[in-house]
Amino acid sequence: MKKIDLLLQARWVITVNTNNDLLEEHCLAINNGLIIDILPTQEAIQQYSAASHKILSEHAIMPGFVNCHTHAAMNLFRGIADDLPLMEWLQSHIWPAEQTHINQNFVRTGSQLAIAEMLRSGTTCFNDMYFFADETAKIANDIGIRACLGLIVIDFPTVWANDADEYISKGLQLHDQLRDKPLLTTAFAPHAPYTVSDTPLQKILTLSEELDIPVHMHIHETTDEVNQALDTTGMRPLQRLEKLGCLSPKLVAVHMTQLNDEEIKSIAAQGSHVVHCPESNQKLASGLCPVQKLIDAGINVALGTDGAASNNDLDMFGEMRSAALLGKITSMDAKAVTATTALRMATINGAKALGLDAITGSLEVNKAADITAINLNAIETQPLYNPISQIVYSASREQVTDVWVAGKQKLNKRQLTCVNEEQLLIEVKKWQQQINAT
Amino acid sequence: MKKIDLLLQARWVITVNTNNDLLEEHCLAINNGLIIDILPTQEAIQQYSAASHKILSEHAIMPGFVNCHTHAAMNLFRGIADDLPLMEWLQSHIWPAEQTHINQNFVRTGSQLAIAEMLRSGTTCFNDMYFFADETAKIANDIGIRACLGLIVIDFPTVWANDADEYISKGLQLHDQLRDKPLLTTAFAPHAPYTVSDTPLQKILTLSEELDIPVHMHIHETTDEVNQALDTTGMRPLQRLEKLGCLSPKLVAVHMTQLNDEEIKSIAAQGSHVVHCPESNQKLASGLCPVQKLIDAGINVALGTDGAASNNDLDMFGEMRSAALLGKITSMDAKAVTATTALRMATINGAKALGLDAITGSLEVNKAADITAINLNAIETQPLYNPISQIVYSASREQVTDVWVAGKQKLNKRQLTCVNEEQLLIEVKKWQQQINAT
Repeated sequence: MKKIDLLLQARWVITVNTNNDLLEEHCLAINNGLIIDILPTQEAIQQYSAASHKILSEHAIMPGFVNCHTHAAMNLFRGIADDLPLMEWLQSHIWPAEQTHINQNFVRTGSQLAIAEMLRSGTTCFNDMYFFADETAKIANDIGIRACLGLIVIDFPTVWANDADEYISKGLQLHDQLRDKPLLTTAFAPHAPYTVSDTPLQKILTLSEELDIPVHMHIHETTDEVNQALDTTGMRPLQRLEKLGCLSPKLVAVHMTQLNDEEIKSIAAQGSHVVHCPESNQKLASGLCPVQKLIDAGINVALGTDGAASNNDLDMFGEMRSAALLGKITSMDAKAVTATTALRMATINGAKALGLDAITGSLEVNKAADITAINLNAIETQPLYNPISQIVYSASREQVTDVWVAGKQKLNKRQLTCVNEEQLLIEVKKWQQQINAT
Repeated sequence: MKKIDLLLQARWVITVNTNNDLLEEHCLAINNGLIIDILPTQEAIQQYSAASHKILSEHAIMPGFVNCHTHAAMNLFRGIADDLPLMEWLQSHIWPAEQTHINQNFVRTGSQLAIAEMLRSGTTCFNDMYFFADETAKIANDIGIRACLGLIVIDFPTVWANDADEYISKGLQLHDQLRDKPLLTTAFAPHAPYTVSDTPLQKILTLSEELDIPVHMHIHETTDEVNQALDTTGMRPLQRLEKLGCLSPKLVAVHMTQLNDEEIKSIAAQGSHVVHCPESNQKLASGLCPVQKLIDAGINVALGTDGAASNNDLDMFGEMRSAALLGKITSMDAKAVTATTALRMATINGAKALGLDAITGSLEVNKAADITAINLNAIETQPLYNPISQIVYSASREQVTDVWVAGKQKLNKRQLTCVNEEQLLIEVKKWQQQINAT
């Protein structure tokens, strides 16, 4: 009998490996934070002596979600301005609110709220872009969730930095600080083509190659963005980015609702990644990302919720469902963006985009034990003919019972192990009062 | 002090009355199943002596949802065939499964499962269309949910009836049986233009006028439906229905994804109702209903989940969110289908379509106490700037804590009061095994 930390026994194991293997009555053997074996329960019980043996008899276990586009701290702006188009929403509501309220404390509480929400809904890794990323990093590290911190860059001054050079140097400083944090990585995060000029973009490209980190950017979110660039530069934003050399396997391009066939070919040829945010794109009436077309072209498409100010939650169940539903209507083909595709987008594809697919995104031997358990024995998910279909089309975040990140349990029977929810809600309400008062 | 049955004290009362009044710290006084007063909490406590005083200090209370298009018993087919277009889904999967499995017992268990799911997610009234409606009626009556039973009519024989005349006569029989059931009403339910010919439609029209009940029908669900009708009859289905005299305030037209401007004008002029099913329409890639355009034309648009075989749940929270999100992208206008509009579609507009708006669909004096309480003090719905935005864009069905139908509590702290959930799930699993075996 081999001694291990944890034996996770489940009714279904949804591996999201290359074969999409769906295993019944199997166990995951977990030691030192890694999955060291996946095998039938009967064999597992004979081979392993586990310090803890968790039986999930009505549950599917699956890789934790990788939420590939967030602005975590914006959770404090959840519902502050709804039913408005992107530019009005940004210019009349979000940017003024940010100018008034953003500081280290705001980002601390907002990040705590977002991470609590993500863990409660089965997300074990997120790709963030916001000011005071050092604070978000600290909170992610303290709570113990995997995160890719965006080293944000914008041409104009904010509370975080005065000019592109300062954004970049603050980003590099944070990157250095996080070198010894096993759960944390970084990506350059130039905000968008219309807010970052060529010079900083070129610096970012060089540095991202040197440091071997992704470049996370909003691109082609709306027709307005594309048309304005055409008016002012004579080029579509992607053309400009391609000329600058931005299209590469390091590029994590978010939104991408406006794409012609030539652009799709380029993205595929260069191995860039696309992050689809179906709920945000609908809520802001930004446009329809041609997800199935991108997948058919061989592009890796991941999934993100965007910030809670434009969604208004960080729920990857809702996002998978929206991706599958919207993907079909966008292609006018009910076979487009199947449940399995949506599940891959929400897990392994996100890990790939972040360069983390050797570590997370699927349940495979030698990967981190980043795991979400979902109780499917509810009125809402019965009868059950296919657990993947049930998870994508019927289950809700509240059916997540347990979550592990790198083998450490972060949610235990719906209770967060590393967040004081009551205290957090008190802090959140203080911010609500303060924001409401202005 | 006036003696009453129940005083419901809530942090927020979302009335969905004509003014969309949102009241804070108010009470509903309930007696004999009716709302007899709505007033500030301090006044209520002085004026009423209630047998039961329920305090919902973190909650919004709102009218129970009216799910305006269901096939309740199909809950047993939840997830049986996904990611398929309408006709393949119907002809290769649903119709064969129905032929093999549908009987009184199937409809009994399927209806119980659907009603349990609906009550758990805040729905207090549903508009159903399926075989053995007598059985669904019995279950709805036993559990105590409001329902409009569809008197189904199709040209071809099924286990329920052999020809249109038999469908109609069985329908009339059921209508008579339900006369003394205060929670139950009926509607004629000719399945669709492509499955019901002129003669039965004409009979139905005459009878619906005589009995003063709605006509509930799938119409213009897909382009194929419209094109095939054009090919075979030279008319679009709506043209044919208009010629037959079907367009009237009695018509409850479901789906309506294919509509030209002239048709929209006719529907508005005749006062017919449209039921939008955003998730089903996306899942089957049926098409986009132009919801905001219909509303702007003055048409009453309600909301339905459709059956769980094409959705795959009966969750009106998800459906409101989908309606708001899809409505914006359909109009390419972020101001289209606001949160308030989606909430009205899911409540009062459904009641209007069913001719039940004097009884249910809003919280107003002299209406039935059909009420849903939602706890908004969750990580996922904080901070909170506007409860309606939170309910539409962030809340989940699991945040429904309590539900009343006609003043009787049907859900109490998430526990169903009139359904044995454990026993129900055992029955459901038996059906799952039987369906899986074929």
